[in-house]
Amino acid sequence: MNVESIETKIVISEVMMPSKANVAGNIHGGEIMKLMDSTAYAAARRYAQSNVVTARVDELEFHLPILIGHLVVCTAEVVFIGRSSLEVAVEVEVEDLDHNGRRQKALSAYFTMVALDENARPKSVPPLPLKTQESQDKFAEGKRRYEEHKAKKRRQLEKA
Amino acid sequence: MNVESIETKIVISEVMMPSKANVAGNIHGGEIMKLMDSTAYAAARRYAQSNVVTARVDELEFHLPILIGHLVVCTAEVVFIGRSSLEVAVEVEVEDLDHNGRRQKALSAYFTMVALDENARPKSVPPLPLKTQESQDKFAEGKRRYEEHKAKKRRQLEKA
Amino acid sequence: MNVESIETKIVISEVMMPSKANVAGNIHGGEIMKLMDSTAYAAARRYAQSNVVTARVDELEFHLPILIGHLVVCTAEVVFIGRSSLEVAVEVEVEDLDHNGRRQKALSAYFTMVALDENARPKSVPPLPLKTQESQDKFAEGKRRYEEHKAKKRRQLEKA
Amino acid sequence: MNVESIETKIVISEVMMPSKANVAGNIHGGEIMKLMDSTAYAAARRYAQSNVVTARVDELEFHLPILIGHLVVCTAEVVFIGRSSLEVAVEVEVEDLDHNGRRQKALSAYFTMVALDENARPKSVPPLPLKTQESQDKFAEGKRRYEEHKAKKRRQLEKA
Amino acid sequence: MNVESIETKIVISEVMMPSKANVAGNIHGGEIMKLMDSTAYAAARRYAQSNVVTARVDELEFHLPILIGHLVVCTAEVVFIGRSSLEVAVEVEVEDLDHNGRRQKALSAYFTMVALDENARPKSVPPLPLKTQESQDKFAEGKRRYEEHKAKKRRQLEKA
Amino acid sequence: MNVESIETKIVISEVMMPSKANVAGNIHGGEIMKLMDSTAYAAARRYAQSNVVTARVDELEFHLPILIGHLVVCTAEVVFIGRSSLEVAVEVEVEDLDHNGRRQKALSAYFTMVALDENARPKSVPPLPLKTQESQDKFAEGKRRYEEHKAKKRRQLEKA
Repeated sequence: MNVESIETKIVISEVMMPSKANVAGNIHGGEIMKLMDSTAYAAARRYAQSNVVTARVDELEFHLPILIGHLVVCTAEVVFIGRSSLEVAVEVEVEDLDHNGRRQKALSAYFTMVALDENARPKSVPPLPLKTQESQDKFAEGKRRYEEHKAKKRRQLEKA
Repeated sequence: MNVESIETKIVISEVMMPSKANVAGNIHGGEIMKLMDSTAYAAARRYAQSNVVTARVDELEFHLPILIGHLVVCTAEVVFIGRSSLEVAVEVEVEDLDHNGRRQKALSAYFTMVALDENARPKSVPPLPLKTQESQDKFAEGKRRYEEHKAKKRRQLEKA
Repeated sequence: MNVESIETKIVISEVMMPSKANVAGNIHGGEIMKLMDSTAYAAARRYAQSNVVTARVDELEFHLPILIGHLVVCTAEVVFIGRSSLEVAVEVEVEDLDHNGRRQKALSAYFTMVALDENARPKSVPPLPLKTQESQDKFAEGKRRYEEHKAKKRRQLEKA
Repeated sequence: MNVESIETKIVISEVMMPSKANVAGNIHGGEIMKLMDSTAYAAARRYAQSNVVTARVDELEFHLPILIGHLVVCTAEVVFIGRSSLEVAVEVEVEDLDHNGRRQKALSAYFTMVALDENARPKSVPPLPLKTQESQDKFAEGKRRYEEHKAKKRRQLEKA
Repeated sequence: MNVESIETKIVISEVMMPSKANVAGNIHGGEIMKLMDSTAYAAARRYAQSNVVTARVDELEFHLPILIGHLVVCTAEVVFIGRSSLEVAVEVEVEDLDHNGRRQKALSAYFTMVALDENARPKSVPPLPLKTQESQDKFAEGKRRYEEHKAKKRRQLEKA
Repeated sequence: MNVESIETKIVISEVMMPSKANVAGNIHGGEIMKLMDSTAYAAARRYAQSNVVTARVDELEFHLPILIGHLVVCTAEVVFIGRSSLEVAVEVEVEDLDHNGRRQKALSAYFTMVALDENARPKSVPPLPLKTQESQDKFAEGKRRYEEHKAKKRRQLEKA
């Protein structure tokens, strides 16, 4: 298997039906979080070529409310690889089909997934090709978040 | 509004979860038909810039079974315009995320949608730009289906 | 097993709840298509006494919109048998419970199902008894559609 | 409006999909109770020609487990009328489509519904025609349950 | 295993989303019945430490309508043990989050569950500790309902 | 309204049914995120006595996988108040009903909600009573996260 042939990005999209409304009549934020988790799962599974599970989610931000009838486009991209973990940047854009509107950023987050082998033990994943400047920048930022998070865990363990 | 700036194509995709399984454990064909209808709706609504309803579906074919875990990618394209009707060609491709597989054609169909004004009466839709040979060919085929269908309706009415 | 004792018709019905609404607040056409597929499946499975899958859907027409609260009655009838395929005529009627209304035809379609044996290979199905003039007429029409469709496939293959 | 022309019975049916399974893999009893409530609602709404709400359910019995793939047929019949209340006898039968089985009784219950006018206040409902011996017998039994229940309520109030 | 350490009570709660609405826009009574069944199941399963199935539901009463946005709190308590049956008292309270309201009783019922061993045959369940006066009173009432129901079954069998 | 009488904590719980499974047959992480969002919403709405929307989620961690049949208990507590924002600490515990297990921590996260007035503009929320040392400690930590986040936003804006 040629690593460089594996795509790092996946797009999942959906038209928002009334069954996904919250109490106020907008789309339930939890439904969008579920969609983001599915998209991160798909991107990581395809990249790792193995089962993956969500380990953590950071900096999940809601920028815009989403309404019934909106087209939601969720893009997940594997941007950083730790030993067996994959950081997936997830962005949700929204488009109002009625007003021929441009797509606008509605949510974003970083999902950390862990690749598992057939015995549900962490397994290593192939390195990212990083052929463009953009992918190298994203990787560096992912690495910074990964190390910040590890340092924080260490501090919490020392305190406990 | 500049007609030529309106996109005629929309892509909706989804990872198939177990809640969409049929009695045999594959994905329920009806769930995919529902996804195709939503995608045709989105493409027609964006193109017509008004509410649209499904009037008929023709030549819906299942080429491949779809399994839990598959990524389903549904593409809908407005290919023909009658007075207030839009023919939307819908194609469903499927990708097995586990085996780094190529996408394969799983279903296809033609959806006829009708554009409605605010009083739920049919309204006219802008003509297709048809700038490429491909779009002109698709339009010609759509026109043939449209006229065949009208001729058939006439025969049925005469017989009745 | 006595073929003539097998029923060819099945009726599935449902009261339409708000969770099945589309963006405009009516019942999502895709939900009704899913109901039609389930009903065709049930009729074909009972007749064939084996697993069945949907192969194609033709002439699916929406005659009336369906609203929240309507009673939807879907009837599927096996009308034609090819070697291992069954054509199932599906009709959806709708009744407004609030206004003591008569049932009105809302959708219709022809579903072609294929019977599968335990190794998922097409298997033959018992012939239809065709004891009434009506069942013989329906069979003849089904046969015509079956042959038209086969001829069309042949033309497409020759062109390709 | 001619009372005798109003139907007292309604049938709702469904093929059981895996999304309705409980933890043990059979169909969730609560899903069937929901289906019974919808069917009682539909029968009472059509009979009363007004909004109705469920007030109580008695003697709900599960006779047989229901499995994925079963056809469930739920019949609701208005059998007794109090001032603004309707007693609806609900029976669920189940059919195993794979084994060409007869329908077997799977659940039964009595639902008491109350008819409401536009201000959500109880309104009277037309009397039952009771043209057959069977309908008169069912009415007498419904009346007995209605009076037993009222006597019991009185005793509870006196004790409190 | 120490019987007295087993809890007899479980609480399941949920905020009511629009996808659970009925035709009139309130919460579908059947959805609440389904929630009650799940809660009775959880209480009985934990107490019996084995699979359990619902055998009957008695005296299910709706005291208050439930609206979209309400917090629903469902409490199930094992109150009586027959040989392999468990009677579970289920009570639903509702709280209007918007008006800082107190919780009010909305539904109540008695669920009779049967404990099953690994071959799906009834198995005996441990006796209730009954250490408080309240638990002894509830047990006595449960026993009365259990015996009334058995006597009634006997009368029905003799008549049949 | 007496601020100190407002509860800051809410508990939402659910038995995990097969319809919430992911591709691997465990419970879909996105379903649990949706449950956490609903619980944070309920806690914040009750505290703020107004509509609230999710603005961000931080440090969402999955500690344990959740399986079909597990009882999931989600606790949300308002721990910090900014002007119109509320930080809600959300913790998910899981209990295996079959093995009489203790509850174990399965997920945790911080949800930031914003209170909105009737014109969907941010409105101020009452201060937390902070009568115990524990609530003061949680508040101090919430304040630290709030200020870290604000400082980070400032840096991002300066860079852009």
